[in-house]
Amino acid sequence: MPQPRRVILLGASGSIGQSTLEVLEDLSQRGERSFTLVGAAVRRSAFALQGIASSHPLEAVAIAEEATAGEASSEVRRADGRLVPVCRGPRAAVELVDAVARPGDLVVAAMVGAAGIEPVLAALARGCDVALANKETLVAAGAVVMAAARQHHVRIIPVDSEHSAVAQCLLGLPRGSDDVARVVLTASGGPFRTWTHEQLRAATPAQALKHPTWAMGAKVTIDSASLMNKSLELIEAHWLFGLENTRLGAVVHPQSMVHAMVECRDGSVLAQLSPPDMRLPIQCALCWPDRVAGPARRVDFASLGSLTFEEVDHARFPALLLAGEVIQAGGTSGAVLNAANEVAVEAFLSGRLPFTSIAGIVSDTLDSVAAHDASSLEAVLAADGAARAAASALLPS
Amino acid sequence: MPQPRRVILLGASGSIGQSTLEVLEDLSQRGERSFTLVGAAVRRSAFALQGIASSHPLEAVAIAEEATAGEASSEVRRADGRLVPVCRGPRAAVELVDAVARPGDLVVAAMVGAAGIEPVLAALARGCDVALANKETLVAAGAVVMAAARQHHVRIIPVDSEHSAVAQCLLGLPRGSDDVARVVLTASGGPFRTWTHEQLRAATPAQALKHPTWAMGAKVTIDSASLMNKSLELIEAHWLFGLENTRLGAVVHPQSMVHAMVECRDGSVLAQLSPPDMRLPIQCALCWPDRVAGPARRVDFASLGSLTFEEVDHARFPALLLAGEVIQAGGTSGAVLNAANEVAVEAFLSGRLPFTSIAGIVSDTLDSVAAHDASSLEAVLAADGAARAAASALLPS
Repeated sequence: MPQPRRVILLGASGSIGQSTLEVLEDLSQRGERSFTLVGAAVRRSAFALQGIASSHPLEAVAIAEEATAGEASSEVRRADGRLVPVCRGPRAAVELVDAVARPGDLVVAAMVGAAGIEPVLAALARGCDVALANKETLVAAGAVVMAAARQHHVRIIPVDSEHSAVAQCLLGLPRGSDDVARVVLTASGGPFRTWTHEQLRAATPAQALKHPTWAMGAKVTIDSASLMNKSLELIEAHWLFGLENTRLGAVVHPQSMVHAMVECRDGSVLAQLSPPDMRLPIQCALCWPDRVAGPARRVDFASLGSLTFEEVDHARFPALLLAGEVIQAGGTSGAVLNAANEVAVEAFLSGRLPFTSIAGIVSDTLDSVAAHDASSLEAVLAADGAARAAASALLPS
Repeated sequence: MPQPRRVILLGASGSIGQSTLEVLEDLSQRGERSFTLVGAAVRRSAFALQGIASSHPLEAVAIAEEATAGEASSEVRRADGRLVPVCRGPRAAVELVDAVARPGDLVVAAMVGAAGIEPVLAALARGCDVALANKETLVAAGAVVMAAARQHHVRIIPVDSEHSAVAQCLLGLPRGSDDVARVVLTASGGPFRTWTHEQLRAATPAQALKHPTWAMGAKVTIDSASLMNKSLELIEAHWLFGLENTRLGAVVHPQSMVHAMVECRDGSVLAQLSPPDMRLPIQCALCWPDRVAGPARRVDFASLGSLTFEEVDHARFPALLLAGEVIQAGGTSGAVLNAANEVAVEAFLSGRLPFTSIAGIVSDTLDSVAAHDASSLEAVLAADGAARAAASALLPS
């Protein structure tokens, strides 16, 4: 048996984080692969950290925001009785990575939003492979992040189901994305797939949070309802696989069974299918590129039934068109799109913005904040800040 | 530009042969890959050979059966005026291979039925890779053929659309079929997919020859209508990919767009899609494993519509169950199944056997001819002969 691979989990209390813990548990019980979870970061939940510490030999943990003064002083103790050092504050995840990560470790980046950028860069700089579930990192800082991965000779392995699907298909192509004519990501269409524009205008957060096929966090669920999520994923695919906009597309596939299709230069299309269950792409990333038995739900071939595909209605879902604009504009436009979207989604969730205005706020912010060169983290963060200010100013008062 | 790859085409006048010529022509016009067709074999059509000779630098050709005394003396002449040597008679294809093939050449085996076995063995023995469209070769002589490929360190690259699909998906798995939980081949269901048992009993050859999605030769079209074709393909997959019966299955997919699905050990399913067009798997085999632009029809993602999957009705299509029996029985049972099926299909085509009796003739022949060890060509040919005699005796007089 080789040495267990050391894993650091950022975003441990979220949906992807919890699924990652399940997969680690399952793989260890099967004895197929061996991992040691040595670090975990959460935004708020010290309680979740204590749960993890009781069954993993954590060397340190991180909490970004202290919910109460009481929790700030909470201890995190391992099963062996040892107290685990706690990094605290907005840079806690970066400090955790700096304290714990060694070359060859795997960092699972499952934080939400632009908060994931700096910890990912810290992980890459330390020679760690990154299993990336945090799409905003590549959307906002793709140039910086991909350059860092190249510089440090480490891999970014996608955890998003669509990008995992693409990466799995590309493994069979001798020249990787050079053999690709077109990549098509599927979109479930979200809860509003069949709604009229009038219905969309009155959509409430509760309605938008009811995703038909995937159980996910609030931000990504709203993004799925607006199809902004697919825009973010197209931009992410652009960076991960080096594909220009003309070789990227999306199609609505309500069953969420086929996650992506890769059309090769000869016309052959490779596709990846599985029931909607994030444990599969998480396991793929943990074991990449190996295939071992795991906990993910299986395709039932006898009852596959009908898999349907339809074009996206851009009139009702204008957010999808923003991906092409951003990929072509380049520079800091991805950071602007992402930041404006985070502001708009938060405004929608708190009842201050109609659902149908999300794409407009993002589009108007892209128009009002000039795109600059995005080859430094500082430029990305400056664009992020400018976009948040601009988007906030555009919100209805 | 590397040296053109030398190609020998067996079964040049058939459906696969003609498509192979189209693909060679197309690739040479695009300048992506360079091939030289140095040999061609046909069953009867000296006319087809003359057509090929006028545009390819053939070194020799083969004709198995002379239609008339007049054609026997026909000459085959190249564009440069040179007369091409002609091998004649039942062993003509073997003689052609022995006369022309060099190590590293590619032999496209597109003959129909057990007639393909000996030329394929001759090609493997000369160190040629074989692009195999002749499924009966592996069904009847899988043990001998796979052993020869290993012994001579050459590849057998599948041309059947289903097996090409599996092979394409396996390219992305680090341990190939060791990473596979299950391979599922799709079946169009043929022209009789929705027919009742009573309708099937009265089915005529003309009705059986109307395949809904593929234009193919008569033998394989009848096999598709009875689903015997899928049985042959499951046995072929057993040999090509080293998969036991429990890891092999079939599902009806009337659109013939998905050709096979490979379920990995972790539950991820890789699939290959393309419109029904044999030029794609032929090109894949010619360029294997490279991907270059070619003539095959493209998937139209916007109009993919609905892809449906349903279980095979074994009561109406009992031929499909014979694959499992043969894979488990091993030995010469594949040769027996194949020979009995060739006899039964010919009897059906000539109006001497009801459609619904084909599977029964094959099954009864399997019961009446004992299976022996199949590690020599002689044993395979003896079983083939015994099965033909037994099947013929079972036909209605």
